[in-house]
Order: sequence, then structure tokens, then C-alpha cells
Amino acid sequence: MRLKPQGSQFFQLLADAAANLVTATALLRDLTAVPPPDREAVAARLHEVEHAGDDLTHTIMVELNSTFVTPFDREDIQALAARIDDVLDFLDTAADLAVLYRLGEFPPGTDAMLRVLCRAAELTAEAMPGLAKVGELEPYWIEINALENEADHTYRRMLADLFQPGADALEVLKAKEVVEQFELAADGFEHVADVVQTIAVKES
Amino acid sequence: MRLKPQGSQFFQLLADAAANLVTATALLRDLTAVPPPDREAVAARLHEVEHAGDDLTHTIMVELNSTFVTPFDREDIQALAARIDDVLDFLDTAADLAVLYRLGEFPPGTDAMLRVLCRAAELTAEAMPGLAKVGELEPYWIEINALENEADHTYRRMLADLFQPGADALEVLKAKEVVEQFELAADGFEHVADVVQTIAVKES
Amino acid sequence: MRLKPQGSQFFQLLADAAANLVTATALLRDLTAVPPPDREAVAARLHEVEHAGDDLTHTIMVELNSTFVTPFDREDIQALAARIDDVLDFLDTAADLAVLYRLGEFPPGTDAMLRVLCRAAELTAEAMPGLAKVGELEPYWIEINALENEADHTYRRMLADLFQPGADALEVLKAKEVVEQFELAADGFEHVADVVQTIAVKES
Repeated sequence: MRLKPQGSQFFQLLADAAANLVTATALLRDLTAVPPPDREAVAARLHEVEHAGDDLTHTIMVELNSTFVTPFDREDIQALAARIDDVLDFLDTAADLAVLYRLGEFPPGTDAMLRVLCRAAELTAEAMPGLAKVGELEPYWIEINALENEADHTYRRMLADLFQPGADALEVLKAKEVVEQFELAADGFEHVADVVQTIAVKES
Repeated sequence: MRLKPQGSQFFQLLADAAANLVTATALLRDLTAVPPPDREAVAARLHEVEHAGDDLTHTIMVELNSTFVTPFDREDIQALAARIDDVLDFLDTAADLAVLYRLGEFPPGTDAMLRVLCRAAELTAEAMPGLAKVGELEPYWIEINALENEADHTYRRMLADLFQPGADALEVLKAKEVVEQFELAADGFEHVADVVQTIAVKES
Repeated sequence: MRLKPQGSQFFQLLADAAANLVTATALLRDLTAVPPPDREAVAARLHEVEHAGDDLTHTIMVELNSTFVTPFDREDIQALAARIDDVLDFLDTAADLAVLYRLGEFPPGTDAMLRVLCRAAELTAEAMPGLAKVGELEPYWIEINALENEADHTYRRMLADLFQPGADALEVLKAKEVVEQFELAADGFEHVADVVQTIAVKES
């Protein structure tokens, strides 16, 4: 019998969960690019990814309860899994609402938003295997913070555009609900990075 | 002098706080069923329940500060009390806004929402006396999670209905503000369960 | 070489961060009082204050990573800095959105809201140097809670006024977005006080 390096399964499971975010953001980008009638099929695939994420989160919880020694505080591993799951939920919700509300065109700025989300997902997926050396992840959370600022900036401009005089208030409301999920997802990536930073502070 | 079982007062106080949620959800269900002119009286009673909840939260804080040995980490007991208090606030706010905004009919889906909230309150009230055996509460948080998913699903369908073309945007905005509190309350029950789960992870 | 009292730099840095909130709330009050064309210049000054706050938050993080003994748990000092930063963000966002959305008149109730925010900022700034005796800060968090209740009450009445029949739904949406930031800032002050209370519970 050989001993696995302690906690290696958590780094792998969190890496898998973060890899899911890469798939989900790519699908959401696709959904914003296809004609409205084709959105439902893409949303269905994104929803499957979200289910796979739920299974991963559950596996992480079970492992936490059955593992004697964990690489970080249990609460922090749990928080990481939960925050990654939150992002996946926001991405899935954005897709679901766009279909459900029969949104027309995605408003200008959507491309910029999706570029930010795809990049944040990549960074998060690259960071997870590096958790074993959490002190070296500073460049990760600095770029995630910059991306969140960019998403916030873009979000406000998108709303200002939507609020142009003469706009149909009901259409504005619908678009706002969807775009808000983009912004929440960008925030969510930052919350993942915040947990990583909390772990780094404890380890320092 | 006889010693009380350690921490028993906290389980009792949290059980009282959760019992308040049962009363509050039942009152909110009543409020959504009576004619609009009768809502104010029900909202006033719900507001009294909310005040009683504030007193309980305060008592828990005072006990935490004057008790040497607590059954769980002080922060977790404090978090449980705070999250229960949050739910009570959302229920009270829903009632207050419905009166204040002179909401017309509650939108379709309201009954389904209130059934979820009443059931979540019952489950939470049943779980609190069981905190002494927190490892056995898994069925509680699994059902709470399922209820939150149901509430989320219902909430989105309610909004999609509200956003039907031709709707009065101002009425939609008002209804959305109220219905949002239902959804926040359902989320809030999940956050209570999250704290219970955090405690269980620490104890395992 | 003389030793500094342990952790004194953290109390000073947090006091500086809280002093920034006094400046920011005063600027936001000014912005709501000047004619619309003059708002942009005030928003720019508020944005500079927000940048200075970011620098302070960064300094606190660096100090946390390079200090061996901290006066409280590292996570709590980090949380205090983060929650103060959140409030500054809400104040900055309120100003930014008012300019960006070309908001007309600020709705009735704005003066009352700004009085609450200015008072909460003063209280917070006075509390920070007192962190060394955190057990004596009860009057601070009691008043902050009362102010948050007042802000919440005012916020609801402001929305009820905005929702008057015949209102322009698009203008309501814009005003709501801005007023929401006032309410979030008032909540944010309470979240700062919550962290202080958490520290006090641990120290008791």
C-alpha cells in the first residue's frame, strides 16, 4: 500500500470543479452568439455541466467528512467548493433566464463581458492545481481582481445604454436580469480568489 | 445546585427562534390569501413576531458573552442566530412591501412559494433541538436544499410570467420587489442549513 | 530600538480607512445637493478617495502577511478592511451611477439617507481607534444597527414614492439603482460593525 500525498484528492477535485467553469463560460459565450431559437439547446448543455458541478461539490463534501487530515482548514476547502459552485449557478442562471424571458438581442457589451468571464475561468482552473503552493498565487488573484473591475465597469455602461430615453422598460428589465448574472459571475470568481487569499494569509 | 447540561440553553433559544419562523411563514401565507385591505393587520402581527425574534437574537448574544463553555464555536452559534434572524427579516419585509406598495393581486406561483417557505420553516424548527446530534441532521439540509431549488425554479417562472409583453412595467417592478423577498427567504433557510453543515463538518 | 505596541499599526490603518468613509459620505452628500451638471466633478473627487481606500486595504494585507503577531485573528483584520472597502465601493458606485445614468432630481428621502450615512461614517471612524478595547464598543454597534434600521425604513418609503401610479418606469429604474447603493452602504456599515462584534465575542 502506498500513501497518497496528503490532500491531493482535494486539489484534483477542486481542479475538476474549476475546469467545469471553463466549459460553462465557453457554452455561455456560444449561447450569446447563436440565433435566439438555438439558445435552448446550448442552455440545456450548460445545465448538464452545472449538474456535473453539483456532483463534484457533493464528492468534495463527502471526502471532507471522511478524511482525517486535510491540507487546509476544512471550512476553507468547503468554502472554495461552495464559491466555485456559486459561479456555475450564475452562469447557468444567465442561460436559463435568457431562454425563459425570450430575450431579444443581447445588449452591447455582452462580448466584452463574456471575454472577461472566459479569462477568469481559465485563471481559476490554472490556479487550483497550484493550491499546494498557495503563497505563489498572488498573480492569480491580482488578475482576477482586475477582471472583476473590468466586468463592473462594463456592466454599468451596459445598464446606462439600456436606460436610454425611449427604451421599453419591460425589455430593459429583462435584459438587466440576465446581464446581472454576468456581473454576479464575475463577482463570484473574485469570491473564489478571496478564499484562496484567506488560505494564503493563514499559511503565511 | 445542579448543573445544566452544557449549552442546553442555546439549543432551546435557537429552537425558539426557529419556532418564530413557523409562525411568521404562516402569517405571510395568510397575508397573501386575504383581500388587500386586510393585509395591513396581518403585516402588523408579522412585525410583532419579527420583534420577538430580535429579542431572542439579542438574548443569544448576551448568553454567548456570559457563558464560559459553549457547545460549538461561539462564531457558529452567533452565525446561526444571525441567519435565522435574516429569514425573519425577509418574511417581514415581504409583508411590509406588499402593504406599502399597495400591491394588487399576488402573482401566480405565490401559493407554491408559500408552501415551500412554510415547509422550510417546519424543517428548521425540527432541526434545532437536534443540534446536539448534528451529524444526524443530513436529511434536514438535503430537504432544505431541494426546497431552495424549488423556490428558485418557481421564482424564475413567476418573473417570466410577469414579463409577458403588454404588462405594466411599474406593476411588474412592484411585484418583483415583493416576490424577491420570498426567494431571499428561501435562500435564507439554506444559509441557516449551511451553518449547521459547517458545524457538522467541524464536529466530524 | 523601541518596540511599538503590538498591532498598533493595524488600528491606525483601519482608522485611516474609516476616516476615508467620513470624507466619502460628505462628498456624496455634496453630490446630491449640487445641480446635475456639477455632479461629475464631485464624483471624480469621490473616486480619488475610493482609490486611496484601495491603497490602504492593500497596505493592510501586506502588513498582515509580514507581521508575526497580530492583535486579533488575521482573518478578522482582513474582514474589517474588506468590509470598510465594500462601503467605500457602494458610495463611489452611487456617485458614478447618478452621473452615468444622467439621473434627474434625487428622489425625496435622499437627505435623510445621507444624514444616516454621514453619521454612520463618523461612528465607524470613532470606533476604529477603540479596537484595542473592543469590549467597550457596544454603544457603537447599537447605534449603527439603529441607523441601518432607519436607512432601511427610509429606503422602503423612497421606493413606495417612486412607484406612484403614473411614474415613468425607466426613470424609476434609474433612481432605484442609485438609491439601492445608499441602502447597501448603510448595510455595509452594519457589516463592519458585525465584524467588530465577532471580534468582541472571541475576546470576551
